[in-house]
Amino acid sequence: MATKSLHDLFLHFLRDILYAEKQGLKAMKLMQRKADSDAVKTLLESHRTETEGQLENLERAFDLLDKSARGVRCEAIDGIIEEAKELVEEARNGPTRDAAIIAAVQAVEHYEITRYGTLVAWARQLDHDDIAELCAANLAQEEGADRKLTALAEKHLNAQAQALAG
Amino acid sequence: MATKSLHDLFLHFLRDILYAEKQGLKAMKLMQRKADSDAVKTLLESHRTETEGQLENLERAFDLLDKSARGVRCEAIDGIIEEAKELVEEARNGPTRDAAIIAAVQAVEHYEITRYGTLVAWARQLDHDDIAELCAANLAQEEGADRKLTALAEKHLNAQAQALAG
Repeated sequence: MATKSLHDLFLHFLRDILYAEKQGLKAMKLMQRKADSDAVKTLLESHRTETEGQLENLERAFDLLDKSARGVRCEAIDGIIEEAKELVEEARNGPTRDAAIIAAVQAVEHYEITRYGTLVAWARQLDHDDIAELCAANLAQEEGADRKLTALAEKHLNAQAQALAG
Repeated sequence: MATKSLHDLFLHFLRDILYAEKQGLKAMKLMQRKADSDAVKTLLESHRTETEGQLENLERAFDLLDKSARGVRCEAIDGIIEEAKELVEEARNGPTRDAAIIAAVQAVEHYEITRYGTLVAWARQLDHDDIAELCAANLAQEEGADRKLTALAEKHLNAQAQALAG
């Protein structure tokens, strides 16, 4: 029996993104260890710090709803991270693996971007403007991280990987 | 032993997105049946037609590489679609379910957006400018579909869902 209201879905999405951010954080630590170039390591480190702030924003959102900040297992992010790990494991060490790491992290970012986009819209409609602002701040950081990863990939890694691929 | 070159990863991503598009097409048919409003049904129908053209573009890309157009199972899209189905099943019928459908389809679109973004960058670096163009055309359609879904959600569904949620 389908019974969930928009508010139920909203709370479910908050729990989903909390889980996704925590899993993403673990995956980023792994990717940072596997990365070859300092530029990739530095970008992942800086996004890791941002992610810790995003988790605090999410905790504030749960406080505002007077709900416990617990995540709910999310098959989407589990699948994305599982695939990311395989991709990175299989890629030849060096610039090719760095290209794989960037693509893998961007898939995580895009999942978060779509969820935060929905959360902002739903929060506004449910008159939780304070939560909409918290989610919009996280969304802006995810979009920024995605743009930085694209720029890094285009400027450095692909050309190097191609030079080594032959 | 990690051995894959950038070209290997590129071919893998093409097979991955082929699978993702086919699974996405099936999911969209289901969502179209479950949707309440004509606006959502119409948008999904039009994106379904676009997706069929995108599959043709992908087949052309495989032809250009002289490879068979076969997909490879992708845990990320499987997870995203599994979660989408649960979300839609659980949502109360009507505007709330339509809001869930839009969010679910946007998660699929964002996975495709990130993969096409990577494919365009890698195709250019591997001097497959023809494939880069095919993937860029698909990417532009996915981004367009995402924008249309956002506009539809913001304009109609959320407000209706909220009115009915009380």
